[in-house]
Amino acid sequence: MLVNLHADADAAHTERSLRGLGLWTQRLADDEGHIRSLRIVAPSPPISVDALNAVPGVLSVLSTQSGHPLVDAQAGRPVVVGNTQIGGEQPALIAGPCSAESAEQVFAAAEIAATSGAKILRGGAYKPRTSPYSFSGHGPDALGWLREAADRHHMALVTEVMSEYDVERVADVADLIQIGSRNMQNFALLRAVGASRQPIMLKRGRAATVEDWLLAAEHALDAGASQVVFCERGIRGFDPSMRNLLDLGAVALLKHVHGQTVIVDPSHGCGRRDLVSPMAKAAYAAGADGVMVEVHPHPETALSDGAQALTADELRHLAKQIGVSV
Amino acid sequence: MLVNLHADADAAHTERSLRGLGLWTQRLADDEGHIRSLRIVAPSPPISVDALNAVPGVLSVLSTQSGHPLVDAQAGRPVVVGNTQIGGEQPALIAGPCSAESAEQVFAAAEIAATSGAKILRGGAYKPRTSPYSFSGHGPDALGWLREAADRHHMALVTEVMSEYDVERVADVADLIQIGSRNMQNFALLRAVGASRQPIMLKRGRAATVEDWLLAAEHALDAGASQVVFCERGIRGFDPSMRNLLDLGAVALLKHVHGQTVIVDPSHGCGRRDLVSPMAKAAYAAGADGVMVEVHPHPETALSDGAQALTADELRHLAKQIGVSV
Amino acid sequence: MLVNLHADADAAHTERSLRGLGLWTQRLADDEGHIRSLRIVAPSPPISVDALNAVPGVLSVLSTQSGHPLVDAQAGRPVVVGNTQIGGEQPALIAGPCSAESAEQVFAAAEIAATSGAKILRGGAYKPRTSPYSFSGHGPDALGWLREAADRHHMALVTEVMSEYDVERVADVADLIQIGSRNMQNFALLRAVGASRQPIMLKRGRAATVEDWLLAAEHALDAGASQVVFCERGIRGFDPSMRNLLDLGAVALLKHVHGQTVIVDPSHGCGRRDLVSPMAKAAYAAGADGVMVEVHPHPETALSDGAQALTADELRHLAKQIGVSV
Amino acid sequence: MLVNLHADADAAHTERSLRGLGLWTQRLADDEGHIRSLRIVAPSPPISVDALNAVPGVLSVLSTQSGHPLVDAQAGRPVVVGNTQIGGEQPALIAGPCSAESAEQVFAAAEIAATSGAKILRGGAYKPRTSPYSFSGHGPDALGWLREAADRHHMALVTEVMSEYDVERVADVADLIQIGSRNMQNFALLRAVGASRQPIMLKRGRAATVEDWLLAAEHALDAGASQVVFCERGIRGFDPSMRNLLDLGAVALLKHVHGQTVIVDPSHGCGRRDLVSPMAKAAYAAGADGVMVEVHPHPETALSDGAQALTADELRHLAKQIGVSV
Repeated sequence: MLVNLHADADAAHTERSLRGLGLWTQRLADDEGHIRSLRIVAPSPPISVDALNAVPGVLSVLSTQSGHPLVDAQAGRPVVVGNTQIGGEQPALIAGPCSAESAEQVFAAAEIAATSGAKILRGGAYKPRTSPYSFSGHGPDALGWLREAADRHHMALVTEVMSEYDVERVADVADLIQIGSRNMQNFALLRAVGASRQPIMLKRGRAATVEDWLLAAEHALDAGASQVVFCERGIRGFDPSMRNLLDLGAVALLKHVHGQTVIVDPSHGCGRRDLVSPMAKAAYAAGADGVMVEVHPHPETALSDGAQALTADELRHLAKQIGVSV
Repeated sequence: MLVNLHADADAAHTERSLRGLGLWTQRLADDEGHIRSLRIVAPSPPISVDALNAVPGVLSVLSTQSGHPLVDAQAGRPVVVGNTQIGGEQPALIAGPCSAESAEQVFAAAEIAATSGAKILRGGAYKPRTSPYSFSGHGPDALGWLREAADRHHMALVTEVMSEYDVERVADVADLIQIGSRNMQNFALLRAVGASRQPIMLKRGRAATVEDWLLAAEHALDAGASQVVFCERGIRGFDPSMRNLLDLGAVALLKHVHGQTVIVDPSHGCGRRDLVSPMAKAAYAAGADGVMVEVHPHPETALSDGAQALTADELRHLAKQIGVSV
Repeated sequence: MLVNLHADADAAHTERSLRGLGLWTQRLADDEGHIRSLRIVAPSPPISVDALNAVPGVLSVLSTQSGHPLVDAQAGRPVVVGNTQIGGEQPALIAGPCSAESAEQVFAAAEIAATSGAKILRGGAYKPRTSPYSFSGHGPDALGWLREAADRHHMALVTEVMSEYDVERVADVADLIQIGSRNMQNFALLRAVGASRQPIMLKRGRAATVEDWLLAAEHALDAGASQVVFCERGIRGFDPSMRNLLDLGAVALLKHVHGQTVIVDPSHGCGRRDLVSPMAKAAYAAGADGVMVEVHPHPETALSDGAQALTADELRHLAKQIGVSV
Repeated sequence: MLVNLHADADAAHTERSLRGLGLWTQRLADDEGHIRSLRIVAPSPPISVDALNAVPGVLSVLSTQSGHPLVDAQAGRPVVVGNTQIGGEQPALIAGPCSAESAEQVFAAAEIAATSGAKILRGGAYKPRTSPYSFSGHGPDALGWLREAADRHHMALVTEVMSEYDVERVADVADLIQIGSRNMQNFALLRAVGASRQPIMLKRGRAATVEDWLLAAEHALDAGASQVVFCERGIRGFDPSMRNLLDLGAVALLKHVHGQTVIVDPSHGCGRRDLVSPMAKAAYAAGADGVMVEVHPHPETALSDGAQALTADELRHLAKQIGVSV
């Protein structure tokens, strides 16, 4: 935003007033060094044009237009997922295996998830893997196991789609379609999934700014998606002591400033099983509407990401701590 | 850590067992492609040598030596600051003005802080400023105001020192000496402050890894500091929507894995007044022992950082939310 | 890599010898503090197992296996693109418009490119755009203009594909298929393009490590791509004074250590027209086999990225400076 | 910069004209959605107020004031260092040991440096070390060796100062005083060194933006420093395959846009001996006025950073490649 000053305004005084309102400002002067405008570099609380116009010395206020009107329009509404929702009164717990390895493993994990209070089952049928030689999922078979497991426990199902060719198949079984971190700006996929008219869980790309993320959601909504829930899962950081850098400031910003529905994936978010629980609690405190965690009946046999999967006991303990009612 | 395998071990089986324990591993093979060792890239829960030796297939275990034995030795002990402490049962609230602008402003801010439950007063007599033309503090006079204000309310005092020449003067009045983010690896200053034998609050540098931070604390302890409390205040991120990126994963790591006393500065941490409260709550949930916030009787007249200072009402509300007893 | 030491080796001496060879090391000790192994954290020059075995004190050497054998196997070979190649004696110049806006604009830009010495025409028919409301390309029509323009000047053609559904269409006209930065880890697209058996230009993701990048290329080669040329175009940095952070160290690493064919896109790399020329020269000096730049007959009417497009005169000057023969 | 538009201007047309000039813009509208101003987000070539006023539709132009007038004032002038200079016609080569370990080692390294064409000797008497238990320099003795070695070969001397207490001692022997990366925002040290009225070599902090760096130089000039030469040595990156991320875009920006004298330290810049030479050449191509490298008569016995030190032969080869005349 930009505040133009009256010709006879005391610019320093107006600037202090704006800062007192929580706004970081920058001075803009004409050729003769006379300060004519103050740019609001970062509005700390969201501020209205009226509030700015009320500040002594302010002549007029200019704004940049939002690039994501459809995202703005969904603010404040919980995201409906099957027979449950994310963003309502209750914290949402989404749990399940990293990848669906067998019918048995999926059923066992779903049972643990359901009895811990999770209303949404997660699990990967198609897994994006950095290496082409890693296990990449059981595909259509796994979709069947996941749907059956979810139905047994009256849970909704979220699962990831990676290929445009699989969108229809995934949309047929999933209540919430996940777009993974690596595909956050895969606009062809965003539009194909959007066209299915289902709700989308959009994981944040590792180098995405909050604005990039909102604009990616706008692509999906513009293509027809019913709603978008945002999922923070850690961005690229410089410290090798964690696999990812969980950005809870972005969660607070999305929730408290943009009014969006947000969940956090603390398993990927730090990549350490022992920090999943404190980071899940921190996510709620920051404003998250729910958390998504990995659970495995036998982590020591997991085909992917065993190191960050919770055991049944750990999940139950976590659910209790964050106030999930079973 | 490194796990050497028995000659006849089933490396894949041992690897899955280690991952099931929450450990990320990497394979090391000899010339003929035979896997001889598994490197533990990131131990998810801390793991003992004995636990590793108990895994089938493990022949021996090698470790890297900690580079910060003095820091390790202070684990688990609250940091004593004047007549109070950080890291005990109660969450610590540290509050006060960004910079000490006048006796009146300091006294007013201290009163707000004390009545909100803060046991430690903060305030800058010497201010590091990115620009040489910004207000840089009232120096010795300000030290006097701060000490008097703290005494009036039986509070302890934390204040920053920037120059080796000022260490003695600051050590005379402060109960806890702050090393700022920009000086985290100013080893001459760390050693000079350490030699005063007082406790130190060490703010994290904007590009510092957790290991760099621990090693900087080791410098101070090696030079004689009684104890070091770590303060996360946001690292350098790539997203312009926040001034800093508050790294609560690092807080959880320091607290739950390294056993250190940690506080969080959510004012600088995101630079937005409206997110101070949720991020303060998130910090506690992640494991912080306290928070340090800026309060100003009249933010609209502040000489520095008015945009992120809380008002009296905002501070009282925050204190209540995080369970600080008055 | 890991070096195991003889039981009676002088570990400090062996370590200094390794460092003298340009290797950064880390010590691994047993329970009793006896140093048994030295881990090579970062090999500065590539080093052979034989050279390590020759160092006094070394008992045996273990290595991690490369995760990208197909990429390793293509090392040292120029990439054949239509009737020309990248990675041979001559520096490659790839030029053309950011997006193909009309037949006329494409023909004019191609003429400028050809007369400046470019052997490969670039131009976008499908444009990834952060906002859904930005111009996203003329699609099939644009492919036709580009092919015709390339043929007129006996140039090869590189153009980007964003959707799996467009792979066949693009493969029909392009000599080199571009995978954009946002799709670097879009594994479905990588595999679909790979299956066309054509050469691929793989732009680096903004948060991708060199290892991530090599593994993404492995996906494409594993799926059938004939060859992969890497294109550095700037990663996500923290400094707002540049749009991207051009990582020429990664270029040097890919070229001199991994033996790969690499080009640099200095237009996106810094996003400033006035720095394209020095950064293009720097790219060559660091080891790049070519540069890809944007040229527009009339930058002031460009539908995308006009701010970073070169004029005809600027391109000719650049071509001369980097030694491209017309 | 900000461009205010005429009431009847065609905003889209004016915007395209500005972009055609290489300027990235953002629209600012009033309450009714009428675009009143265009903010220049990033000026690609530096642009004058007059040039902007000449664009159709422009009513007036506002600017932010530079925060570093003293730095701006030194633009375009070579930095005088003893009997030589940096920033003149000849590329400057600065060479010497990482740390001064003994008189013999310093004399041997200086001889190698001098015979390779270096006019300035580098060498550390005081070494900042991340760990308190690493070798931290021989202090005053080392200053003596360095001065004597420089004099023997008619070289100027650059060496680092870390403590305010050592400034006088270092200023007595050095022709150019180095402020290290960790101390870039150690304002007390910057001002103490500035007060010595000598020229300063200011290494970039690992998380510093170009603007932070310019402002740090302003502190030194404001305190009395004769001139400041900037030294890029790599910033904090996310890729573990390099120790640092050498930002040659920042070098090009400082040189070509800000007109400053800049050198590059490719030894620290990537931390790999085998990439020092290509990155040194790339630095020159990007606009650097010189390079600073580490040389050691016997890298395998070096007390610090042996892994990145060049041998005599490697230095001579490098000097020849970058056109340094002996």
